[in-house]
Amino acid sequence: MSSDESATERQASARRAIDALYATDLATRANGMRIMEAGPGSCTLRMIVRPDMTNGHGTCHGGVLFMLADSAFAFACNSEGHPTVAASAAIEFLAAARAGDELTAAAAESWRGGRSGIYDIVITNQRDERVALFRGRSHRLSTPPKKSGEPA
Amino acid sequence: MSSDESATERQASARRAIDALYATDLATRANGMRIMEAGPGSCTLRMIVRPDMTNGHGTCHGGVLFMLADSAFAFACNSEGHPTVAASAAIEFLAAARAGDELTAAAAESWRGGRSGIYDIVITNQRDERVALFRGRSHRLSTPPKKSGEPA
Amino acid sequence: MSSDESATERQASARRAIDALYATDLATRANGMRIMEAGPGSCTLRMIVRPDMTNGHGTCHGGVLFMLADSAFAFACNSEGHPTVAASAAIEFLAAARAGDELTAAAAESWRGGRSGIYDIVITNQRDERVALFRGRSHRLSTPPKKSGEPA
Amino acid sequence: MSSDESATERQASARRAIDALYATDLATRANGMRIMEAGPGSCTLRMIVRPDMTNGHGTCHGGVLFMLADSAFAFACNSEGHPTVAASAAIEFLAAARAGDELTAAAAESWRGGRSGIYDIVITNQRDERVALFRGRSHRLSTPPKKSGEPA
Repeated sequence: MSSDESATERQASARRAIDALYATDLATRANGMRIMEAGPGSCTLRMIVRPDMTNGHGTCHGGVLFMLADSAFAFACNSEGHPTVAASAAIEFLAAARAGDELTAAAAESWRGGRSGIYDIVITNQRDERVALFRGRSHRLSTPPKKSGEPA
Repeated sequence: MSSDESATERQASARRAIDALYATDLATRANGMRIMEAGPGSCTLRMIVRPDMTNGHGTCHGGVLFMLADSAFAFACNSEGHPTVAASAAIEFLAAARAGDELTAAAAESWRGGRSGIYDIVITNQRDERVALFRGRSHRLSTPPKKSGEPA
Repeated sequence: MSSDESATERQASARRAIDALYATDLATRANGMRIMEAGPGSCTLRMIVRPDMTNGHGTCHGGVLFMLADSAFAFACNSEGHPTVAASAAIEFLAAARAGDELTAAAAESWRGGRSGIYDIVITNQRDERVALFRGRSHRLSTPPKKSGEPA
Repeated sequence: MSSDESATERQASARRAIDALYATDLATRANGMRIMEAGPGSCTLRMIVRPDMTNGHGTCHGGVLFMLADSAFAFACNSEGHPTVAASAAIEFLAAARAGDELTAAAAESWRGGRSGIYDIVITNQRDERVALFRGRSHRLSTPPKKSGEPA
């Protein structure tokens, strides 16, 4: 296989892994998040802020912004098909988002070592303004987590 | 007014401020989060993890855990009635939660200075196991943010 | 061995592990940090801010505050004698410290699971005012790191 | 003044502000950190890890890595000459550094809004391997902090 074919295959493999995870990710889908781009170690998601996603200040709940970035992070760090979870994450809130805003979260791998990884996610709005910066640390599991419904 | 009456009034005032914010916080209510305790600089919320809150690994989405803690943080830092928003937050994921789990987030003020504050939130499950630790930095606004629906 | 003797022995064992680490920790000693308390999962350090620890604003360099907390963290998470390193850490700067101030960093274990741990460190000054809050995530090594001077 | 002259002047102005801050930053200079590049919102520092900067594991103390990044951050966020301090910072430790290693910290502005800013700093070693990632939140003061030696 040539180097080009290899890159194409890695891209297709990442897309399949992310699509499979997305198909069973009820929370991400219930919030209307859609995959715009998916590759090895990267993923871009987009969503529209719904009125029921706003907080008592009338702006998009910080938890919704976090979830958008966290989903992009999860897809990016699981793109090789090894079950990988978030160990920690931090978010900087830069600007408020409002109902009707279209938000895009772009996740990229900043580092990988052993079973750990660092991913950076930038959330922008429809005017290409930065809304939040997110950094997450991933941990690849040696064995997959139990599925919901199985005994704990 | 005696010191006891003053403490009672501060408690009642915090409860009123938090109840008012909760009444208009559509995201917190849409996720079934209920107020268990509310006081000056503190708030405890509880929720049941629903199946539509799980991710592709079949466990509670990290964004839902973050939102639970973030809501408790928001109520605690707005308990004096001054519009206050999150500047940043970090979460450490300790244990997975699953559909049906009952999660409790307890927020307490760790520091206040000028217009900034630091709040620590602990999320536990129904077995009193620690699920996540959250730390947020708040920023008190000089003017309240625009309401959703107003021109940006 | 009774439960009391066991607690006494665990305390003594932690103290020995921390003293051994401190003896070879040139950076901590070069900065004049002294052990005030050491136990299983906990450690308290104290130091005086020297003039050569100040930054261009004339206040204690944030890196010195971080190092004080990071050393207390390192001793606390190594108190059982298993080589353990920091994976990540975050610090909230609350108040400036100045040359001559006496700073105390108290580290406590907030969670342990598998080979990971979360430790919280509070830095206070001689007036018992909070100067910084630090949270670190530790990772226990399966094999100790190479010593300085060995081939990389 | 043409746009090119303006860029040149902004660059020279940033360099002067950073040089002035560096001249009085005793901690940064005591640790042998040198300015490699300085511009509007950016700064690159370099240092050699000394034996007295190592910890009990024989590797560079995390506090030294933090200080290197924190100094680059401080210079970058003060490059316009307005006294600006760190509100918070987080560091991800990626690889150990050892005595003799040459470390470079490159700071860049990721966002500015109101009196706040977010800066990202990458530390690499002489083999261009990533050693740590640092993200800091800055806060521009309305009045400069008191100098060391003045009454608190």
